[in-house]
Amino acid sequence: MCRWLAYSGSPVSLNDLLYKPENSLVVQGKHAQLGAETTNGDGFGIGWYGSLPIPGMYHSIQPVWHDRNLHELSVQAKAGLVFAHIRAAIGSPVQETNCHPFRHGRWLWMHNGYLGDFLRVKRSLVLAVDPSLYPEIEGSTDSEIFFYLALTFGLEEDPPSAVARAVGFIEHIGRQHDVEQPVQMTVATTDGSTTWAFRYSSDQRSRSLFRSTDISTLRHQYPDNPVLHELCDDARLVVSEPLGSLRGAWHEVPESTCVVIHQGSAQLCPFSPTAPQVLVG
Amino acid sequence: MCRWLAYSGSPVSLNDLLYKPENSLVVQGKHAQLGAETTNGDGFGIGWYGSLPIPGMYHSIQPVWHDRNLHELSVQAKAGLVFAHIRAAIGSPVQETNCHPFRHGRWLWMHNGYLGDFLRVKRSLVLAVDPSLYPEIEGSTDSEIFFYLALTFGLEEDPPSAVARAVGFIEHIGRQHDVEQPVQMTVATTDGSTTWAFRYSSDQRSRSLFRSTDISTLRHQYPDNPVLHELCDDARLVVSEPLGSLRGAWHEVPESTCVVIHQGSAQLCPFSPTAPQVLVG
Amino acid sequence: MCRWLAYSGSPVSLNDLLYKPENSLVVQGKHAQLGAETTNGDGFGIGWYGSLPIPGMYHSIQPVWHDRNLHELSVQAKAGLVFAHIRAAIGSPVQETNCHPFRHGRWLWMHNGYLGDFLRVKRSLVLAVDPSLYPEIEGSTDSEIFFYLALTFGLEEDPPSAVARAVGFIEHIGRQHDVEQPVQMTVATTDGSTTWAFRYSSDQRSRSLFRSTDISTLRHQYPDNPVLHELCDDARLVVSEPLGSLRGAWHEVPESTCVVIHQGSAQLCPFSPTAPQVLVG
Amino acid sequence: MCRWLAYSGSPVSLNDLLYKPENSLVVQGKHAQLGAETTNGDGFGIGWYGSLPIPGMYHSIQPVWHDRNLHELSVQAKAGLVFAHIRAAIGSPVQETNCHPFRHGRWLWMHNGYLGDFLRVKRSLVLAVDPSLYPEIEGSTDSEIFFYLALTFGLEEDPPSAVARAVGFIEHIGRQHDVEQPVQMTVATTDGSTTWAFRYSSDQRSRSLFRSTDISTLRHQYPDNPVLHELCDDARLVVSEPLGSLRGAWHEVPESTCVVIHQGSAQLCPFSPTAPQVLVG
Repeated sequence: MCRWLAYSGSPVSLNDLLYKPENSLVVQGKHAQLGAETTNGDGFGIGWYGSLPIPGMYHSIQPVWHDRNLHELSVQAKAGLVFAHIRAAIGSPVQETNCHPFRHGRWLWMHNGYLGDFLRVKRSLVLAVDPSLYPEIEGSTDSEIFFYLALTFGLEEDPPSAVARAVGFIEHIGRQHDVEQPVQMTVATTDGSTTWAFRYSSDQRSRSLFRSTDISTLRHQYPDNPVLHELCDDARLVVSEPLGSLRGAWHEVPESTCVVIHQGSAQLCPFSPTAPQVLVG
Repeated sequence: MCRWLAYSGSPVSLNDLLYKPENSLVVQGKHAQLGAETTNGDGFGIGWYGSLPIPGMYHSIQPVWHDRNLHELSVQAKAGLVFAHIRAAIGSPVQETNCHPFRHGRWLWMHNGYLGDFLRVKRSLVLAVDPSLYPEIEGSTDSEIFFYLALTFGLEEDPPSAVARAVGFIEHIGRQHDVEQPVQMTVATTDGSTTWAFRYSSDQRSRSLFRSTDISTLRHQYPDNPVLHELCDDARLVVSEPLGSLRGAWHEVPESTCVVIHQGSAQLCPFSPTAPQVLVG
Repeated sequence: MCRWLAYSGSPVSLNDLLYKPENSLVVQGKHAQLGAETTNGDGFGIGWYGSLPIPGMYHSIQPVWHDRNLHELSVQAKAGLVFAHIRAAIGSPVQETNCHPFRHGRWLWMHNGYLGDFLRVKRSLVLAVDPSLYPEIEGSTDSEIFFYLALTFGLEEDPPSAVARAVGFIEHIGRQHDVEQPVQMTVATTDGSTTWAFRYSSDQRSRSLFRSTDISTLRHQYPDNPVLHELCDDARLVVSEPLGSLRGAWHEVPESTCVVIHQGSAQLCPFSPTAPQVLVG
Repeated sequence: MCRWLAYSGSPVSLNDLLYKPENSLVVQGKHAQLGAETTNGDGFGIGWYGSLPIPGMYHSIQPVWHDRNLHELSVQAKAGLVFAHIRAAIGSPVQETNCHPFRHGRWLWMHNGYLGDFLRVKRSLVLAVDPSLYPEIEGSTDSEIFFYLALTFGLEEDPPSAVARAVGFIEHIGRQHDVEQPVQMTVATTDGSTTWAFRYSSDQRSRSLFRSTDISTLRHQYPDNPVLHELCDDARLVVSEPLGSLRGAWHEVPESTCVVIHQGSAQLCPFSPTAPQVLVG
């Protein structure tokens, strides 16, 4: 339904990141190869960390491939942690408040996939959002409610646990409403220092997700890019689909997995939903 | 915070209605004379009834004065019942789903004013919306929640009573949250046949509202407009502020009043909120 | 680079025309089958003739598939002559003034294709536009300049001759600038009564163009569409690609051909450019 | 018709520059005090110099006061040379290519005012643009043509002389077409190092223009702004109208004057148009 990219490492030009790769996110806007949709033209967004703890965001309802402001900004800006997302809407209106990434304080969140039968379960999910967080909800997507559920379940303290609890809760509510596939997701979230990426779906047929092997493969990927040749070895990418066709450059992230990126290292852990506590007792 | 116009009567050119008057709604976009803001440039919308029972809508995030599509549409279209609204946003994002009028089936709704401290009371108000209506909420304004509360309280059966109950409920919730001015409103709603317009605020200092006297004054207002000269005598306008300076053409709608327009006749009734029933018993 | 549709006949719902066909123009926005691009998401436009001699226009920079105002308008409006165009930009900015159809008085014009090496020949072409028409040029596309050249060469008097002279002139200027393929085009133009459609390119490999056979095939095409079953036999469509897969419903328009649609009849004539007169003498 | 601001000096937060002043450019969007229009809501643009010689640009057709992306960008970005412009359109469409500043290589240009009877003289002016520059013209404003005329007359070599020749040429063409007021302007242009600002009009009643006195007055202007308190003394602003009401902080730029800002110093020189040479001989 969407495609996304999460970069962390030494500061890189957004232009190098978003436009130059052979199968860049901008190219995927028209011609995604592994997505549920080939066209992702229903708005997009980027989030980036500059010198402030709060990341900047640029959201647009234009297709990514013809947005001139994004190109201008990308040429000027460098950042060491970048989230970028292109949207293929499946019901929710195309408006800036529905563009990913979503932000809460210094946290960013983006999602590819859906919450099954969202309009049927939306009210129950929204009711579970912490009332102090509720007024921050600005848009109407399943992805944003998912984010606020994760925040409610402690995203800022323990992201893998909070996401597991949020997914478990959504699946629980979904089953109550006879939803066949309550959760389909790849998700990335960050506090500006560590990035957590998740691949999971209720039916174990999740949207595609890949991570870069290491910087040496990136250098092979972009042999003519002097920026990458000068990069430290801490550069890491997690992407919905490979940015190029170089063999060996990308590892598929396995089903039901969480990838944790921190200071150039990537760790993989199994991911499974946590059923709501109240049901156990 | 906004300005609006409700026309009913014989079919009239939208161009005559929206562009030609001396103080037209398009003029009020930049230079409202009686509004809380002189500039109403944060999107606009129109709703009109054609040959179908469901009205058409055109919503735009552009300022009304430079939207070329509105002008094109206005030149081509005639309608016998037209709602038009220009927005001065006070917090909610400028997006099409936040543009008035809002629609449910054959009903339209538009609002000038605000629900006081909306973000503090929003969750309580949304919880009171009928769960079967909840999934239809698309935007993030107080005005749309107000509409869905009125629908919940029976707008489709008895509009004055439903609006009175909705206002009473909002004031009740507001007082629970120490909101000083829970409701500031002029509202218009219609089923395509009858139009109800309300002027009310918790502190009895409501936004301006006027109604046209009768068609003969309209003919005086636009002496050079052949369309109006051929109009039946059933034409009626309710507006946030007069569309021109002709003395005698406009009556101010009194505080705490409901105006009912049907087949060319206008009736005024006192309007007061109905406190929630459950509190009485 | 683009896809378009020209309808003439008894008034038809724009919704039936633009949304309901299996391979509708809205579908072609994401998945054009015969175009140079599969994605036509860089704005769109429609022109339609209502009760006035001047057609209405709706232009949008949004992708056609998620523009809610177009859907609203289409549900409400019927017209007997409709032009619709979806754009895949190849250099010119995505802005309303670059959306087709273009209008001059009661004439409309839309174009699929390009003028080769446009930026190199643009100044020479613009200089040839009649100075009295020059101030009307609003956008920056090759297609609009092409329109104004055709107007300069007499479009309003004799469309096939004027288009032939315009194409001949563009090819002449192109050859002066060593442009290999000066003209690639399918074009439709109308005065609100007759529609002329052209298929031509300098290298005889023109963009696809089809015309409907007759109304009986349309009825087969949309067996469940009661509107079409009540249509007069004068309905005619010329389209960049068939709106459905029914065999026999569509004829390909041959290379270098002009189709003239008037009062339900379609005539085909050979089309060839007319070299500039001044060069002959 | 518009309002603008040109900053040069030590890098400053765009947020401090565009949002925080009492009568900031964002405030002037709705409530300009000295402009020909109080509302400047027809798009806006900024240009800023980062680490590259080519400045970045952000153009938007939204009113400046509700554009969330501008606020995001302003919070994140600092720059030592910033142009910002808000537009009140007087005929030309509201589209990104009509938003100031305009750019050519490392040069920026922005304009408040108009070229009189532009549509009558446009063709003659465009014909005078150097053919090698002609293809770069993207929009349809008088201001952009003015820029390309200045470039044609040598802006990159000697800005005051080139602007004088451009103005002289426009006045000459204007008089040929019986235009009463050929030029009304305040203009700012920069190569990223020096800024030139001009105040001139054919009838000597030019749009307002002010320059900041020196940084100490700025510090008085924003006593609570720690950034300004740490600024070097090289900060200089040229603005359509003062950003605040502090007495002594702003000098009006006299009629027919060019202000040259370089490395913290401001020089004023008389400005007068240069009549076309060919007419003299």
